[in-house]
Amino acid sequence: MTAYIEPRILKGFRDFLPPAEIARRDLIEKIEASFRSYGFVPIDTPALEYAEILLGKGGGETEKQIYRFKDNGDRDVALRFDLTVPFARFLAEHRQELTLPFKRYHIAKVWRGENTQRGRYREFTQCDFDIVGSDSGAADFEILLMIRNTLSGLGAGDIVIRLNHRGLFNRFLARIGVLDKQVEILRIVDKLAKTGREETLKLLSETAGGDRALQILDFIETKGSFEEVLGKLTAAACGNGEGTLGSSCPESERLSMIRQFMTETGGSLVSDPFVLDPSITRGLDYYTGIVYETFLKDMPEIGSICSGGRYDNLAALYSKEAIPGVGSSIGLDRLIAAMENSGRLRFRPGYARLAIACLREDQGGACQALAEKFRQRGIACEVFLEEGKLTRQFMLAEKKGEQWLIIPGDDPLHSPLTLRDLSKRENREGLSVEDIAALI
Amino acid sequence: MTAYIEPRILKGFRDFLPPAEIARRDLIEKIEASFRSYGFVPIDTPALEYAEILLGKGGGETEKQIYRFKDNGDRDVALRFDLTVPFARFLAEHRQELTLPFKRYHIAKVWRGENTQRGRYREFTQCDFDIVGSDSGAADFEILLMIRNTLSGLGAGDIVIRLNHRGLFNRFLARIGVLDKQVEILRIVDKLAKTGREETLKLLSETAGGDRALQILDFIETKGSFEEVLGKLTAAACGNGEGTLGSSCPESERLSMIRQFMTETGGSLVSDPFVLDPSITRGLDYYTGIVYETFLKDMPEIGSICSGGRYDNLAALYSKEAIPGVGSSIGLDRLIAAMENSGRLRFRPGYARLAIACLREDQGGACQALAEKFRQRGIACEVFLEEGKLTRQFMLAEKKGEQWLIIPGDDPLHSPLTLRDLSKRENREGLSVEDIAALI
Repeated sequence: MTAYIEPRILKGFRDFLPPAEIARRDLIEKIEASFRSYGFVPIDTPALEYAEILLGKGGGETEKQIYRFKDNGDRDVALRFDLTVPFARFLAEHRQELTLPFKRYHIAKVWRGENTQRGRYREFTQCDFDIVGSDSGAADFEILLMIRNTLSGLGAGDIVIRLNHRGLFNRFLARIGVLDKQVEILRIVDKLAKTGREETLKLLSETAGGDRALQILDFIETKGSFEEVLGKLTAAACGNGEGTLGSSCPESERLSMIRQFMTETGGSLVSDPFVLDPSITRGLDYYTGIVYETFLKDMPEIGSICSGGRYDNLAALYSKEAIPGVGSSIGLDRLIAAMENSGRLRFRPGYARLAIACLREDQGGACQALAEKFRQRGIACEVFLEEGKLTRQFMLAEKKGEQWLIIPGDDPLHSPLTLRDLSKRENREGLSVEDIAALI
Repeated sequence: MTAYIEPRILKGFRDFLPPAEIARRDLIEKIEASFRSYGFVPIDTPALEYAEILLGKGGGETEKQIYRFKDNGDRDVALRFDLTVPFARFLAEHRQELTLPFKRYHIAKVWRGENTQRGRYREFTQCDFDIVGSDSGAADFEILLMIRNTLSGLGAGDIVIRLNHRGLFNRFLARIGVLDKQVEILRIVDKLAKTGREETLKLLSETAGGDRALQILDFIETKGSFEEVLGKLTAAACGNGEGTLGSSCPESERLSMIRQFMTETGGSLVSDPFVLDPSITRGLDYYTGIVYETFLKDMPEIGSICSGGRYDNLAALYSKEAIPGVGSSIGLDRLIAAMENSGRLRFRPGYARLAIACLREDQGGACQALAEKFRQRGIACEVFLEEGKLTRQFMLAEKKGEQWLIIPGDDPLHSPLTLRDLSKRENREGLSVEDIAALI
């Protein structure tokens, strides 16, 4: 008896069978077409890098999740866990070869040894897009417009983009005298939705004192239209704190400019998905300007499907030169899971809608010649390879998602053709290649 | 002073800057479109698998090259080193979910710790395509036709596909009484081109004796037209060795059928690239039927850019059920290197040909609104984000490979537009969006 190896894959990793892989590719192709239409260009970086590069000056949470090992040359290496850190390294390394502002996208897999019990995968796809080398509001707005237009085009349902400005929050913290506790406060506030109001208030009180905790909570819970919220936040954060409160400051002006761009670009069509939400802070340290998260209107509970923000200096670890930028990342796997749950993901077993039946194996050459006539017209055409009853071939074509099956004559290239419409279960006889190409 | 981390990547790994990445994607998109036109469907598998699955019953050369390590859960894991082994595991695991014959493609990265001094990469892309669940000659032919048509469509120059049948060679070895030394002989013969005739003869003599060595060399050096070589090989290998030499056998009949299919599909157009070459044996154990390698006519020295063959039982390690198949793999990185050397690779810095200049940053919204009119017409349009002299913006557009730059008026959406043709260094004034869309 031969000992077989049990075919299995690692927990948190997935095989993609054709229907799932085609659905993934359909989405990626739409996302990529959208990025390209804005003049964005693709890059790629290695899956494996020096651990020192990926982990920077200390890993914390990241270090525990990373796939890190010694390679055969005893180098300390790791699989990338996001596309942001490799991009920072890429920028520092290739600065002289790039023209700024540089608009790039990168769609690729990343790996994290996450706890799979929370429904997380250990291998997943990120779709990052960034503009570096510009600190203009026009760059901020372009990224926001791309989020709005790219995600709206995927058939995932209505979206809400929650926008905030880190700098405005910092001004507010400075005004109430707790800017030195910024990092802890950001971390607490970032988890508001998860931990709840009461617990957040408790944690904030421990860090900033009870009065301040209430003020902070008031600030981040400001609600209303974009303009109303912007007015209230400006009043609370801008000015020098000594009687000039309410005058504008660069951060509120930036938000105001972005709002004006939204209206000018497409009126309410473009403006509507955007909500100014001061509770959005993003946990990550490197954001310094606007920050945003994107939610599906009918499934906010799955969390953000596209997040990002503006940073002053992404490549700070690797280079003296400060390169500012703004960017975002679509969490493709989360988006796909949501679309699957809501029945919005289109599954199909294949790309070809047309096939040619195999009545005699020795017609293999002639059937391929016939199929080439369709392929040359841009029509995908499968050739069945095994002789068999027509009823069996009808079933096979249906399983493969094909709608049309050509039943060739004695001479597939010259005899008139019969076309089976598998959805209507009807045959049409005496057709030419041109007839069929026109029909389907 | 801050201590910077030196930005660098691992030896044998590469960053792809936009021109190189766009060129890669152009090729991949063409290859994928070709695969899809034959009714092939995509799958994907994890980059990381259990080492036991990837290495099977003993690694040899493979084991030394593989990236293998213990993950955080102390599992013995490895990065995939090809797409064939994961496909075999995939077949065994998902057999019940698949309809046979199953035609799949898989384009993905693989990793090998190869000696980089030979110009090899440690991370590279493979494009595999296979038909499993059919042992018909029509399946063999379809894979060969796909190699011919896919590679001919890439602009890499003329190709030569060298074809052989493993079974025919085995019959010949049986006839001269050395079938038991098949594995060693295959290995020696596979390296003929590298080691040269004299050394091969010496090695064959040591393994099979001097007379046999000469007979083997005669067999694999048979030259002539497809039909001539097929006649000679049939004469040398078929029959029972006792007076019935020269009658056909299943292996010669298979080759004969494939040749007939070639002629029927497209006459000399399809037949011409194919050469029947008995020296092609492929080193790998699992091939049992036809085997083939593909060369660029003007650069044979770079080796095969697309190889494969027929196997009886790919998933033998993981399953009782024998699934026969035939498949091939395009070595994309080798192909790209060759096309680059011969000046046949088209480099371009971006996808967009059209951009809108930025005269005033506060026009950001209106310029995006203008750009959207082109994007909605399927025309990629970049918006420049930073105010600056027009001459500087002309330079920027040229660097980005854009041919056309719109110079907006006071009101970008309603004033007449000026279009700069950067290649002719000419302006055209007073244009509408429709005018420009029609022009470019």
